[in-house]
Amino acid sequence: MISRKKLLSDFKTVRKASIDMIKPLNDAEPYIQPMADVSPPAWNLAHTTWFFKKILDWNIKNHGADILPDYLFNSYYEKLGDRNPRTNRGSITNPAMKHILAYRKVVDKKIISLISKVNDSEFNSQQAVWPNSVGKGNLSFQIQTGINHEQQHQELFYSEIKNIRWQNLPEFREAYNKTKLPKSEISRKTKFITIPCGTYTIGSENGWAYDNEYKAHKMHIAEFKIQDRLVTNGDFLKFVEDGGYNNPLYWLSNGWEFVKKEKLNSPLYWYRNKSNAWKIWTLNGDKDLDLNEPVTHVSFYEAHAFAKWSGARLPTEHEWEAAAKHLKIPISDSNLVESKILHPKAPKPGKTQMIGDVWEWTTSHYEPYPGFKEFPEGIGEYNGKFMDNQRVLRGGSCATSKNHIRISYRNFWPANTRFQFSGIRLVIN
Amino acid sequence: MISRKKLLSDFKTVRKASIDMIKPLNDAEPYIQPMADVSPPAWNLAHTTWFFKKILDWNIKNHGADILPDYLFNSYYEKLGDRNPRTNRGSITNPAMKHILAYRKVVDKKIISLISKVNDSEFNSQQAVWPNSVGKGNLSFQIQTGINHEQQHQELFYSEIKNIRWQNLPEFREAYNKTKLPKSEISRKTKFITIPCGTYTIGSENGWAYDNEYKAHKMHIAEFKIQDRLVTNGDFLKFVEDGGYNNPLYWLSNGWEFVKKEKLNSPLYWYRNKSNAWKIWTLNGDKDLDLNEPVTHVSFYEAHAFAKWSGARLPTEHEWEAAAKHLKIPISDSNLVESKILHPKAPKPGKTQMIGDVWEWTTSHYEPYPGFKEFPEGIGEYNGKFMDNQRVLRGGSCATSKNHIRISYRNFWPANTRFQFSGIRLVIN
Amino acid sequence: MISRKKLLSDFKTVRKASIDMIKPLNDAEPYIQPMADVSPPAWNLAHTTWFFKKILDWNIKNHGADILPDYLFNSYYEKLGDRNPRTNRGSITNPAMKHILAYRKVVDKKIISLISKVNDSEFNSQQAVWPNSVGKGNLSFQIQTGINHEQQHQELFYSEIKNIRWQNLPEFREAYNKTKLPKSEISRKTKFITIPCGTYTIGSENGWAYDNEYKAHKMHIAEFKIQDRLVTNGDFLKFVEDGGYNNPLYWLSNGWEFVKKEKLNSPLYWYRNKSNAWKIWTLNGDKDLDLNEPVTHVSFYEAHAFAKWSGARLPTEHEWEAAAKHLKIPISDSNLVESKILHPKAPKPGKTQMIGDVWEWTTSHYEPYPGFKEFPEGIGEYNGKFMDNQRVLRGGSCATSKNHIRISYRNFWPANTRFQFSGIRLVIN
Amino acid sequence: MISRKKLLSDFKTVRKASIDMIKPLNDAEPYIQPMADVSPPAWNLAHTTWFFKKILDWNIKNHGADILPDYLFNSYYEKLGDRNPRTNRGSITNPAMKHILAYRKVVDKKIISLISKVNDSEFNSQQAVWPNSVGKGNLSFQIQTGINHEQQHQELFYSEIKNIRWQNLPEFREAYNKTKLPKSEISRKTKFITIPCGTYTIGSENGWAYDNEYKAHKMHIAEFKIQDRLVTNGDFLKFVEDGGYNNPLYWLSNGWEFVKKEKLNSPLYWYRNKSNAWKIWTLNGDKDLDLNEPVTHVSFYEAHAFAKWSGARLPTEHEWEAAAKHLKIPISDSNLVESKILHPKAPKPGKTQMIGDVWEWTTSHYEPYPGFKEFPEGIGEYNGKFMDNQRVLRGGSCATSKNHIRISYRNFWPANTRFQFSGIRLVIN
Repeated sequence: MISRKKLLSDFKTVRKASIDMIKPLNDAEPYIQPMADVSPPAWNLAHTTWFFKKILDWNIKNHGADILPDYLFNSYYEKLGDRNPRTNRGSITNPAMKHILAYRKVVDKKIISLISKVNDSEFNSQQAVWPNSVGKGNLSFQIQTGINHEQQHQELFYSEIKNIRWQNLPEFREAYNKTKLPKSEISRKTKFITIPCGTYTIGSENGWAYDNEYKAHKMHIAEFKIQDRLVTNGDFLKFVEDGGYNNPLYWLSNGWEFVKKEKLNSPLYWYRNKSNAWKIWTLNGDKDLDLNEPVTHVSFYEAHAFAKWSGARLPTEHEWEAAAKHLKIPISDSNLVESKILHPKAPKPGKTQMIGDVWEWTTSHYEPYPGFKEFPEGIGEYNGKFMDNQRVLRGGSCATSKNHIRISYRNFWPANTRFQFSGIRLVIN
Repeated sequence: MISRKKLLSDFKTVRKASIDMIKPLNDAEPYIQPMADVSPPAWNLAHTTWFFKKILDWNIKNHGADILPDYLFNSYYEKLGDRNPRTNRGSITNPAMKHILAYRKVVDKKIISLISKVNDSEFNSQQAVWPNSVGKGNLSFQIQTGINHEQQHQELFYSEIKNIRWQNLPEFREAYNKTKLPKSEISRKTKFITIPCGTYTIGSENGWAYDNEYKAHKMHIAEFKIQDRLVTNGDFLKFVEDGGYNNPLYWLSNGWEFVKKEKLNSPLYWYRNKSNAWKIWTLNGDKDLDLNEPVTHVSFYEAHAFAKWSGARLPTEHEWEAAAKHLKIPISDSNLVESKILHPKAPKPGKTQMIGDVWEWTTSHYEPYPGFKEFPEGIGEYNGKFMDNQRVLRGGSCATSKNHIRISYRNFWPANTRFQFSGIRLVIN
Repeated sequence: MISRKKLLSDFKTVRKASIDMIKPLNDAEPYIQPMADVSPPAWNLAHTTWFFKKILDWNIKNHGADILPDYLFNSYYEKLGDRNPRTNRGSITNPAMKHILAYRKVVDKKIISLISKVNDSEFNSQQAVWPNSVGKGNLSFQIQTGINHEQQHQELFYSEIKNIRWQNLPEFREAYNKTKLPKSEISRKTKFITIPCGTYTIGSENGWAYDNEYKAHKMHIAEFKIQDRLVTNGDFLKFVEDGGYNNPLYWLSNGWEFVKKEKLNSPLYWYRNKSNAWKIWTLNGDKDLDLNEPVTHVSFYEAHAFAKWSGARLPTEHEWEAAAKHLKIPISDSNLVESKILHPKAPKPGKTQMIGDVWEWTTSHYEPYPGFKEFPEGIGEYNGKFMDNQRVLRGGSCATSKNHIRISYRNFWPANTRFQFSGIRLVIN
Repeated sequence: MISRKKLLSDFKTVRKASIDMIKPLNDAEPYIQPMADVSPPAWNLAHTTWFFKKILDWNIKNHGADILPDYLFNSYYEKLGDRNPRTNRGSITNPAMKHILAYRKVVDKKIISLISKVNDSEFNSQQAVWPNSVGKGNLSFQIQTGINHEQQHQELFYSEIKNIRWQNLPEFREAYNKTKLPKSEISRKTKFITIPCGTYTIGSENGWAYDNEYKAHKMHIAEFKIQDRLVTNGDFLKFVEDGGYNNPLYWLSNGWEFVKKEKLNSPLYWYRNKSNAWKIWTLNGDKDLDLNEPVTHVSFYEAHAFAKWSGARLPTEHEWEAAAKHLKIPISDSNLVESKILHPKAPKPGKTQMIGDVWEWTTSHYEPYPGFKEFPEGIGEYNGKFMDNQRVLRGGSCATSKNHIRISYRNFWPANTRFQFSGIRLVIN
């Protein structure tokens, strides 16, 4: 159970963070959608506000915060009305940022007032986790969901602005993060850590978490060995140089189709300069490919092909979670968004960290856990309807917030997704 | 370990069956490919022969059976050379049936001779199951794989000729099976049988089976209840009449896109006659929709939406297998291809049968079992590279052969597949 | 005005020719549609019969020849009811050839009877040309249209069976025409013949002709010079070898898109054998590229690019017609279908022939002539609605019938069409 | 021959006008590309500057104005180097407007200096029209071409900003032009004016004009009658209300496919408000459909279908030009961009005006005139390579500049284009 004070503080923190994030943008960038997957930053700002506005709708009559049309900012909730098609978000130039910022202010004020004034039983009438019911009487659950939702969009924002600026020619690409990236000094050898056979608890056992993390359940998992660090650019470069992108025998059938159709031959944001040296685009600008840094912006197909080429494999999401729990992986020293690097860091010797840096592709398709129940009412479409033909990623990235990530957290994307901070950790039997 | 005598007998039986199956076809039908998924019957006849020809290649030099080009009849094996694109199979009119039948005869003769003459150590040098190595010295494994491969294509043939004839106008559609279909007499109520919580063995423990059924492994499965019969046309018609195809809230997101794009409003092969009565197309001709028969030719998306509408869900493939093992489901009295009905039968009272009639969609994406190893060498691409964005179906259908199906058998198709004999069995917690 | 006797004779001749043409086909070939543009031969046979069946509909009540469904064999006439989509013609295996041949017999008998029995005023109540009215009282016009329609489909048949057999591997391609092709002996130099400035009559002045050939009108045409023979394979090979397919500056913008998308580098049916020598596929089988023969199976885009590369241009359709009329080009000694070669012949010295061999691309888009009126009633959609984004070809080909072609004849295809017997004649100013 | 003084003045005027036009834009609008055909306004500003930069390249070594990459702003000139694909123009956020405005300033300064300083023989060494050669010695021709090019893009700008703002919801669409639109008072009946049979000169006889307007040539044109005013919204509404969009018999075959695929049922920018009344979006904001104004934003297909429904037809481009010349249509009192209305005006009684208001679709495909020669060198791709599958429009629109339009001016767009100010004038025989 969360206190009003903590909830108010969390709410204000996350809402302010979104505003701070857009400060480095130029005039055009808030409105640009370079591909269907990448929503314009202005849309993200309005959409996260719309989510809180729906909470107002569920709790207050005539709240007066209805100043922008739901039609434009509902993402995919069939139950919540018609929507502007996702592919058209980049055609909207008005409402402009000034309207969207005004919208945020009005909604924020109403939400803060609502949190403060609602009576105790409505603030937290029941245990604010799964299963819940939306509507009057469960406000703390609703607000926590809205906060987590906005944190997801903040992470998306970083991958989106990275992609938006990537569209420009190198000489016109500006770094988003002016901080100089730390240099990696040493090249860390990898080894595999044995995770013993046993029965592990998978999923979230209590507290606010997404519906897809419930119910926690026991699973028997056979012994396996997991890499003590992420796959690096140097590791992946060997695959590239060995012709990995040209040999169908390393690839899943769909992956091979994807690679041929898109004519891929390296991770996204890798390119060669005129001297044929590998460079990469980062939120800190273009730089030389650092062989010690974790590889990122690979699709599941590339991760899977790399693993097969290596003679290893990717973990299942259950193995990943079992390993993280067995190894008692801490969150505290991870490279998450709070470290303000926005790029994965080369691993230091000795320590195994599974949280932060890059999301780790697992071989598990995204499916419901035993006993899964969708979030109630209007947000029932949050997760469940997407449990089809997607792969689970685990562990958060350098763009994920510390109070958003959990060992049980299940991220998911289609197997051909490359614009996320996604990477690779291998396992062997 | 299989004996030479049994293997020879199995080989001859399956090879003859393919020839018998094409007897009812008209001149054109062997060559027609009405959609990319449906290969022409002549192609199937040649492709299954090509598979045995590859076994000759692996075991005999200059065998002399190389009379048709591999290029046309290799399906998807990157390792085994270039291929005519799958979508172009329906453009090939030569080699014609006469060449293909001659090809079959030559290859059959050489295979029979090879089985008879090879020495014992090469016939069965090692345990002929997983893991194996292709090449000299493992013939019994190779031939068994070829037999099973041909049985799969025989099942495909039935769904393909059903689809090919469906393209014609009703007045020009000829029944493939002249036998009169048995009439269903009673409408059987359904109930749910409890499958107790426990640890179940999933997968094949010994004998020849596909690589995807190995390794057998233990899984803890929570208690659930499974339907004692398949979902019927009558059950499904209620969903149709309740507007199930028009309500996005029942559907997975991709399913809803699929249904809207294809403008679906009933299972494949259902249609209304001029009096607005529901009819269906079967291999026995057009007939009135029989409400007591199991529904079939539904995609995974339709099965999933139906389950959600029902307040139930589909089983995982592990639950399905656990139930079949727990209930000691027999194969002997199933409606399989040997019963020569080629259509699912209405369930009789009292008995629960999970084998035959229709393949049952499970909610499990097709993934490797723990410790999975692909078939060796040339047939390593048989299963593994397709473990991506497909759903597992279990139990065989009225078009599956009795000595092909097993409780551990894993069929798999993309979620939008409708031309297979696929159906629905629900579970609840 | 045509006599009954002549009309009966023409009708019987053309109907018999269609039957003779399919004799060399194997079982499958009548049903195959290798691409949307290429209709199955069986469909052509039924469609041409359907056209005469519509004439029965317009003239006789309850004629009893309605034994196959219009739905399957109406091509594109919106006014005449719903149709099986063109892309699905290759999915129809029933009605099979036996039904279609029976359909032809019934319709033929009724048409012959109708021609014989109708009274004079209904046979030919008005001048049987433009403008006409369909319905009782204009039978000779209708039958002539049906005959010409079938002749067009006979020409299509040759290009279709050529394309159908091309889909097979070279070792399985059978010649349609068993006659040995004549060998070209001499390489004829080309020269340009001056066509004087003047006023020319364009279009058909009397007799049955398509609506698109009316009204004849006067046009002032400036002096130009036209090639005295067709462009040969040898001429075109120089363009190929000069990198013509790789230089965008020779191409129309749409042509360049087309060439890049389809990865073209030679005319259709050209290929290199294992020794890298150029071969071509003909209805007489595969043979060495004969440098003296007219190039054929080029799209308008290739013809236009070749002309630009040559420093010349293609004629307008009016220039072509003016030249043919000025030069008094005869039809009698042309290489048309009656010569049974089915392949363009190398030009002999001295003579200029503009009829036969290959259709000649002109630079004219297909547009109505001044005063154009569509054919009446049901066949109004024959030509008019296609006057959009197509190019006119003139002169007939080795697959065109002698009593079908005229100097004023306007053929038309989209600019990317390659499966027709299309070729090139250049002009300069 | 143009004087330096006049050329300098024209250059400055047109360059300033482009800057004035973007003043009403918000921050985002310069960068938005709502569909492939609509380039972002910022791109237009840079592209027109790039065109003048190429003139600097051709005339001066090391001119120093090369501050933005050609790659981004070359539109379609294969000869002038690689290009950012047209569909990606809306993904470029940098160079931003500030860079583009700086680019314009630098190039303007250099061009002004070049015009002033070049010697006479290089300014105008030959008659500055067709045919010309680019390179030193023909500056006045080059600059005139650049000016006309920019005027074309200014017209495009108006249609683009109209389309960009249309993407927003009605309540967020801002008028570009704050001037109140004049109200139409009277409904003018139409009549048809006879244009006598005769020989007319078609094309430009002297002065700077596009290559596609040369050579002027004589054409015999039969008598026809042309509408004395444009087709109005009121006229077109009758077609809409008569089910014109639902009857295939009015449409060209490709047009019918287009209308069905796009589900069209009215001109672009027409919509119904909540009371079901017709409204239209204009650059002056949303307003009631004015039945007396000329209809605009119709595709050629809609124009052609309307004409057929009316029992009339569209003119050929030659008929249009003959009529304008015969009727001695003045330009002086036309509704062109200088009138600052940016919307077609209802016709006044008595006068026939064929210039301005809306571009008039003709039935002529865009083809070269007899004796056509492309512009020389780098700008040879300006017009010629697009002479394929487009239709000619004549007469200019309310967005065309007075010193850009001519009677002989040939505009051209694909037949499905709707975002231009295109309209309809009928003819009858």
